[in-house]
Amino acid sequence: MSLDQIAAGPSPKKPQERLTEWLAGDMEAVNQLIRARMASEHAPRIPEVTAHLIEAGGKRLRPILTLAAARMCGYGGPFHVHLAATVEFIHTATLLHDDVVDESRQRRGRPTANLLWDNKSSVLVGDYLFARSFQLMTETGNMRVLAILSNASAVIAEGEVLQLTAAQDLRTDEAVYLKVVRGKTAALFSAATEVGGVIAGAGQAQVQALYDYGDALGIAFQIVDDLLDYGGTDAVIGKNTGDDFRERKLTLPVIKAVAKASAEEHAFWQRVIEKGDQREGDLDHARALMDRHGAMEAARQDALAWARKARAALDPLPAHELRDMLADLADYVVERIS
Amino acid sequence: MSLDQIAAGPSPKKPQERLTEWLAGDMEAVNQLIRARMASEHAPRIPEVTAHLIEAGGKRLRPILTLAAARMCGYGGPFHVHLAATVEFIHTATLLHDDVVDESRQRRGRPTANLLWDNKSSVLVGDYLFARSFQLMTETGNMRVLAILSNASAVIAEGEVLQLTAAQDLRTDEAVYLKVVRGKTAALFSAATEVGGVIAGAGQAQVQALYDYGDALGIAFQIVDDLLDYGGTDAVIGKNTGDDFRERKLTLPVIKAVAKASAEEHAFWQRVIEKGDQREGDLDHARALMDRHGAMEAARQDALAWARKARAALDPLPAHELRDMLADLADYVVERIS
Repeated sequence: MSLDQIAAGPSPKKPQERLTEWLAGDMEAVNQLIRARMASEHAPRIPEVTAHLIEAGGKRLRPILTLAAARMCGYGGPFHVHLAATVEFIHTATLLHDDVVDESRQRRGRPTANLLWDNKSSVLVGDYLFARSFQLMTETGNMRVLAILSNASAVIAEGEVLQLTAAQDLRTDEAVYLKVVRGKTAALFSAATEVGGVIAGAGQAQVQALYDYGDALGIAFQIVDDLLDYGGTDAVIGKNTGDDFRERKLTLPVIKAVAKASAEEHAFWQRVIEKGDQREGDLDHARALMDRHGAMEAARQDALAWARKARAALDPLPAHELRDMLADLADYVVERIS
Repeated sequence: MSLDQIAAGPSPKKPQERLTEWLAGDMEAVNQLIRARMASEHAPRIPEVTAHLIEAGGKRLRPILTLAAARMCGYGGPFHVHLAATVEFIHTATLLHDDVVDESRQRRGRPTANLLWDNKSSVLVGDYLFARSFQLMTETGNMRVLAILSNASAVIAEGEVLQLTAAQDLRTDEAVYLKVVRGKTAALFSAATEVGGVIAGAGQAQVQALYDYGDALGIAFQIVDDLLDYGGTDAVIGKNTGDDFRERKLTLPVIKAVAKASAEEHAFWQRVIEKGDQREGDLDHARALMDRHGAMEAARQDALAWARKARAALDPLPAHELRDMLADLADYVVERIS
């Protein structure tokens, strides 16, 4: 933050709003491309399911990252729009499949697609969006972005499988947690920023900086998500607090609380997480144990450290309004819970 | 078939065995690549699930098509192996997701992955294999094969969704059926043969011939599959007869029987397919209605016509042992039920 900004007090607009305004023309092109490509001549179920999710007020955070990275590196061509739509399609496909895997009932404040239609539709429409994303990225004709995005897709799926097997296992430590989070969240953030630089023809140091920013931002974002699920001081609309607990996920605050648990506390975690025997009041008791060991605050400090890392990663990039907004975005992601 | 071959009587070996022998070295390379790429450093669940399916004695028909097409067009590089592994991964991913969607319990004579592990693993490991297939095809550095295979993936997913919505709907006609079959089966067959020609640098007429062959072969193959599900004269190991009936799928023999149904028969089809009210003896009654209207025989004639079309499509290709084997393969696909 510059001295001017400090003098003027906090900006009334959130960083993502400023990014969205700056990139308004590009975002309109992205939205048009998304609408055109989610259509299906033969199977109307596809746009129905996709529209339910994609027009439900998602924040389009990942496409914004791609557009910002490309513009910041001086890109003037058309393909950042394809890449932004690609990452949104990959993200949407992942959400559809996640909701099947987690048996979720609510997403972004609305019933999930698997609830409104069925698991079958969510699986197959997700597959369709994955395929569409590969068509979109292929149209760029840029082999390097294809390699980055196909690698990211594999890392995402691997992270989801790892989460599946690590869930309900109290031996999951912070190193495994980080692998899961890099897979399920940070891989798409870092690919989103990296391909923006690559399509703009940025040099290797700048491309690496964009990757590092996306990686650190994604990790901070996911830790905050974990914290909000146990009730941060801010409610997030459309998210059911306690979902992770019910799904017996080893998220960061749980891992930190388990690491400091007494024998009695460990028995509690075994019952609710490993055995899945959850009773009335257990979620509150879990929160109390986290408070006792400062697990929430420790996780928040980790998120802050990743946000600082994200901000610092931007240093090799040229001075640019968008760079400042991305830096502020990193802080804002964690401010949501402070 | 040449006069010599007729004089010598039928070859003792099935066409696919002859293809597998001719391509033995390539197939070994494909199997090695498949084993290497289905590994996962972090998530051992992935190779477990994949190995269960991929090493269960699948016939590797699709990779053989790619290898044969490439070799027949004189290819001497390494990438037909990548493309053959790509189509097998796409096929395997599709099977994993299909078994979730169809709630299948048996595949290739063994319990399905969704039964042995769970639906979650099948969904996520399928996603992993899709991503791996895109990595593999990207490594070829050939933009045209990327476009063909990403388009095929979209057509496959679209066909699956179309089948989902067309199932249980007696208004489904042969035109819709053909769209579904082109999606769920023929799109991968035609992409498999087409990319073999493209990677070999074949001319447009030959590439088109390979596409047409794969398309017609895939349609013949699927019609035969439909017939076998109502009990052809040949039992197929590992396939539960009557699955399509229980899943209320509008396959070709059903569509043909419904088209000729009396009012009373139509009420039967409405009960078992549209309402899903199936009782003891209904499958036998369905078979009897198909016999009454010659639906099985008419579908078999359609399959034969597609097989002839596949054989004829090969005409523009140069004389080659592999071309003859592919031509025989088209006949053999239908001979299974005659």
